[in-house]
Amino acid sequence: MKAAVFYGPHDVRVEEVPTPDEIGSDEVLLRVDRSAICGTDLHPYEGHMDLEEGVILGHEFLGTVVETGDAVGQVSAGDVATCACAVSCGACYFCRRGEPGRCAGIRMFGMGMALGDLGGAQSEYVVVPYADRNLRKLPADATDSQLDSLLLAGDIITTGYEAVKKAFRPGDVVAVVGAGPVGLCAVMSAVVLGASAVVAVDTVPERLKTAESLGAVAVTPKEAEDAIADLTEWRGADVVVDAAGSPQGLTAIAGYVRMGGTVSIPSVYLQDSLDLPWGNFWLKGVNFTMGVTHFNNSMDEVIALIRSGRLDPGQIISHRMPLSQADEAYRLFAAREATKVILDPRS
Amino acid sequence: MKAAVFYGPHDVRVEEVPTPDEIGSDEVLLRVDRSAICGTDLHPYEGHMDLEEGVILGHEFLGTVVETGDAVGQVSAGDVATCACAVSCGACYFCRRGEPGRCAGIRMFGMGMALGDLGGAQSEYVVVPYADRNLRKLPADATDSQLDSLLLAGDIITTGYEAVKKAFRPGDVVAVVGAGPVGLCAVMSAVVLGASAVVAVDTVPERLKTAESLGAVAVTPKEAEDAIADLTEWRGADVVVDAAGSPQGLTAIAGYVRMGGTVSIPSVYLQDSLDLPWGNFWLKGVNFTMGVTHFNNSMDEVIALIRSGRLDPGQIISHRMPLSQADEAYRLFAAREATKVILDPRS
Amino acid sequence: MKAAVFYGPHDVRVEEVPTPDEIGSDEVLLRVDRSAICGTDLHPYEGHMDLEEGVILGHEFLGTVVETGDAVGQVSAGDVATCACAVSCGACYFCRRGEPGRCAGIRMFGMGMALGDLGGAQSEYVVVPYADRNLRKLPADATDSQLDSLLLAGDIITTGYEAVKKAFRPGDVVAVVGAGPVGLCAVMSAVVLGASAVVAVDTVPERLKTAESLGAVAVTPKEAEDAIADLTEWRGADVVVDAAGSPQGLTAIAGYVRMGGTVSIPSVYLQDSLDLPWGNFWLKGVNFTMGVTHFNNSMDEVIALIRSGRLDPGQIISHRMPLSQADEAYRLFAAREATKVILDPRS
Amino acid sequence: MKAAVFYGPHDVRVEEVPTPDEIGSDEVLLRVDRSAICGTDLHPYEGHMDLEEGVILGHEFLGTVVETGDAVGQVSAGDVATCACAVSCGACYFCRRGEPGRCAGIRMFGMGMALGDLGGAQSEYVVVPYADRNLRKLPADATDSQLDSLLLAGDIITTGYEAVKKAFRPGDVVAVVGAGPVGLCAVMSAVVLGASAVVAVDTVPERLKTAESLGAVAVTPKEAEDAIADLTEWRGADVVVDAAGSPQGLTAIAGYVRMGGTVSIPSVYLQDSLDLPWGNFWLKGVNFTMGVTHFNNSMDEVIALIRSGRLDPGQIISHRMPLSQADEAYRLFAAREATKVILDPRS
Repeated sequence: MKAAVFYGPHDVRVEEVPTPDEIGSDEVLLRVDRSAICGTDLHPYEGHMDLEEGVILGHEFLGTVVETGDAVGQVSAGDVATCACAVSCGACYFCRRGEPGRCAGIRMFGMGMALGDLGGAQSEYVVVPYADRNLRKLPADATDSQLDSLLLAGDIITTGYEAVKKAFRPGDVVAVVGAGPVGLCAVMSAVVLGASAVVAVDTVPERLKTAESLGAVAVTPKEAEDAIADLTEWRGADVVVDAAGSPQGLTAIAGYVRMGGTVSIPSVYLQDSLDLPWGNFWLKGVNFTMGVTHFNNSMDEVIALIRSGRLDPGQIISHRMPLSQADEAYRLFAAREATKVILDPRS
Repeated sequence: MKAAVFYGPHDVRVEEVPTPDEIGSDEVLLRVDRSAICGTDLHPYEGHMDLEEGVILGHEFLGTVVETGDAVGQVSAGDVATCACAVSCGACYFCRRGEPGRCAGIRMFGMGMALGDLGGAQSEYVVVPYADRNLRKLPADATDSQLDSLLLAGDIITTGYEAVKKAFRPGDVVAVVGAGPVGLCAVMSAVVLGASAVVAVDTVPERLKTAESLGAVAVTPKEAEDAIADLTEWRGADVVVDAAGSPQGLTAIAGYVRMGGTVSIPSVYLQDSLDLPWGNFWLKGVNFTMGVTHFNNSMDEVIALIRSGRLDPGQIISHRMPLSQADEAYRLFAAREATKVILDPRS
Repeated sequence: MKAAVFYGPHDVRVEEVPTPDEIGSDEVLLRVDRSAICGTDLHPYEGHMDLEEGVILGHEFLGTVVETGDAVGQVSAGDVATCACAVSCGACYFCRRGEPGRCAGIRMFGMGMALGDLGGAQSEYVVVPYADRNLRKLPADATDSQLDSLLLAGDIITTGYEAVKKAFRPGDVVAVVGAGPVGLCAVMSAVVLGASAVVAVDTVPERLKTAESLGAVAVTPKEAEDAIADLTEWRGADVVVDAAGSPQGLTAIAGYVRMGGTVSIPSVYLQDSLDLPWGNFWLKGVNFTMGVTHFNNSMDEVIALIRSGRLDPGQIISHRMPLSQADEAYRLFAAREATKVILDPRS
Repeated sequence: MKAAVFYGPHDVRVEEVPTPDEIGSDEVLLRVDRSAICGTDLHPYEGHMDLEEGVILGHEFLGTVVETGDAVGQVSAGDVATCACAVSCGACYFCRRGEPGRCAGIRMFGMGMALGDLGGAQSEYVVVPYADRNLRKLPADATDSQLDSLLLAGDIITTGYEAVKKAFRPGDVVAVVGAGPVGLCAVMSAVVLGASAVVAVDTVPERLKTAESLGAVAVTPKEAEDAIADLTEWRGADVVVDAAGSPQGLTAIAGYVRMGGTVSIPSVYLQDSLDLPWGNFWLKGVNFTMGVTHFNNSMDEVIALIRSGRLDPGQIISHRMPLSQADEAYRLFAAREATKVILDPRS
């Protein structure tokens, strides 16, 4: 089969690789129908994260079930299904406790040995482990446009959605720092969850424009504190989603969040040590929540909202390209010339 | 001042009564700006509930602060404010526990001795006890149309909203039995809270039409079970709001609710004894929640959602009349010729 | 192997039956080390529930893993494990939503076709489906006395525990109606969860004595309402656990529960129709929660509390008998001459 | 009246000051029956926090109601009552939302202008604002020993209790860093709330001994990580309470807490900037919760648990002295020669 293979920073090649031909009894072989490039793919692509040469990339996808292991009961051959990008086992201490993002056996597609050595989905076929827990069968009548959105249900839209929801009460004012793909997904989610106002903070004019079209008050970092104060009788935002992952942004959030508010951090921090205005956070009595999304907790809600037309994350897709052009697709995405690229493995 | 006074079933008279001239230190004297007739007012009007002759009616209202007791800190003279229809003390066991609808000192405007002997608000002035807890100051720039909605924030919209919210997860399918004023408020609330579908069940075509315009799938009781099954892959509704208060309706709900779903009952049941399909409810593992709304828990969310344009319960107002025509207003409302009547005490 | 086989009311025979020799890839073959007779077993034994002739009885047990299907990852041969009495799939809508007791594929050991046609555990061997979700590996150093308690973790102690916990706040006053095995487990659980007082209501003096020894104020139904009022400044109990399953008991609960309190019903109601004081419940604003326990949600907490010595449900075991005397064991238990009987399949 | 007056670091003088003789309508004049010195008092005493000369110290106390404002309904003259050390208004945005520790009008006794200019309770009389919200009437039959514990219900025991409870599930393993008064209160609370194990971390042998007597596994910082790993199958603690407030301690906590666990910080951090192992916390997906305790949310539970004998924080009281010896009491407490000192204003 064809697959996008990682060879090093800025070096992704579409090659012929062996089609997976063995599945375990709780696994599923999926023919990939559409696959996306995610911001996380840029970590190795831009050289910020080590990854072995030869890894098949891709973890945001949906496809058609080809074959199921004999312990699989939720999907059958021919079903169209979307999949959590990070699969959880459903049985360990963490999964049993409702924290699948902390699963002891968590594995991520296309991220190499460190994340469980799973083949990626920027390819024609992919094997899904713990399939009953991590696949979601989609209705046969899903429209093409819904499938674009449902493809994102295993990753960015659910990431943005959960980041808002876990600290949220309807009527709240939500600030989203960073209006990239996850930030825009957080904006949409805050609207559908019943925010009374959403403030998007970014420096890039096009991103701010998109955020505005999704219902946000869109501002630059310089304007952010005043804009939030105006909307909250000077209290600050009830929830601040950090979708930027920048230390300066995190420090600035101390000025955005209200007393007792929550800072929700879906973006990644890997620094051994970070200087934070901790005294300020303590005096405000702030809560922090961070780390890998609990995809298996929130995917069903997101899928139901997409199916009912309430959420439409597919609208952020800017480019569609055949898998064979994956190298060009990566280049465009890394250059921020594309908001979201879909790869079609069948062309 | 003028006030609508209860003299017995079908006998409401607008009369000159003494203006309240003494307020306690935690009380506020409010000039009533707009007042509504509520379904609850029909209980005594139609003879289903005893009420003393001479009681000033009305508990759904907003107005302008005239005078404040010296322990009042949240509002000042001149402020426009809306008010919980059932005031809670904020200090008893129940209030401290977050259950103001169970307040040991709960009092309701215009409902006679049994509910705390408070003058009603279908009048020019009303005294609000526990004012800091039960009034909500409204922004000076609230529009006329927002004020219509905010007037309802102390009663029916918050009743419908909380009935949905307390058992709800975004993406859920909600069934609302009874599409009268509270039922329609539940429909609106389910939409803003992120339901994937709302089914409204009623027999009156106009009500169904209104429910549909608010986003519901509107069906008759005969059609309800199938319609709900269709929307839920035969599971049943996650939440069923009983806004009808009829024993047959409650029995039918056993067929609407999914295994493990919740039946939320804002409508009133006063029967000493009622026959229920309890075995069926047990096998389904259903939850029930019922009783007086916790207005002070949910009003702030509702007000924020109205202010941001997300909720617009004022749209169900069908009639506006001067207070002096209260008798005619009651007649229209009791005859179901009006969905919601606003009385203007200043004309 | 030997097994206790149901032949009809009051007719349980220990017979030689085929040892299960085939397991699915997500299943485990367990050698039963100890097995209990549960109140639920009495439903068919006393003729209140239909059950096919030839069913192997028993659903409360622990044992040693003999063989595992190849998709099983949480236990290995030789491990000692306890098991949920009603197994849930971990993957359906209900399981994904955190409601395993409503699992679309729920199956119960030893309860015949209607509950999934699973062999029972009053036998030498049993096959456990969905093994990774429903078995809990026990530490190798568990004492004999802990194993008695852990044996109950898949059924009655978790039933009593969850019935209290789901509606409970530390410091609450809990009333438990019915001081049989589940009621006593609810009493113990309320104590360990931090109740400020527990009232046990029953008519049988020995049961009341046991309840008292576990920390309850033990009273007869006649004394109950006053005793609860005394402990709660006349408010009523915050939580009432109905562990009796009698219609009169449920009606009496209207007098035990406080305004806004919760009635939690682990006991079984199968009546098509039941007369309830619904107006009274509505005026009190009571919550009801009922149905099959979510074993997979609560077992881990119960096991941790047993392991740490905080919970000791094994103390209610009154009799130990070889499996070969199962008929006599059933007779004693049905006659209420035994509180809890353990059967040893290896003798 | 006599009162302990602050004159500067290490300079507390008992003097004759004017007895408060005017109370607002929502206030209460309380005769102080017993008063404690709290760790917070040491902040100004040791020169770490600015405080105006002349401030009457003391915020942990109980007493007898002398006079009530006319809006006060929950207590009457002669009642014995305990009081939140930081009073909240019960009516602002934060209080209405259930976050009294973030109250816009929060005031603390004996802490000077910055915290609301309230006279302290190391004195014969004290005025309590927002009395209905912040006082709790105690039963007339409370024993002398219970009163010792109840005196602490407005401060340290509730601080320790809430720090554990807000992130806790029964059966959890809790680590408490710092076994001073608040840490010991957290240990006791974790036990009563149903922890399966509590690990107390400190360097002072006497403190460790006390922690052990309360049910904790008591270890030094060097032993902590291994001890926690042993108790949790290498996962780490579900909840870590930071009752030490030291930056090194906070960094070490990254090694104590499990993936997805919660770090709860009742101790005070005022540093403008602090270096934290943020990448480590992010990878573990940790939650943080911090800031002033919501006394009015948790006091009732604590009082119920004290009354029922389940919690006994009074056992940490090491010294009782007349108010007239306040200077010596402060000296002992600052020198850590006393764990907890009670001052008697009537001797």
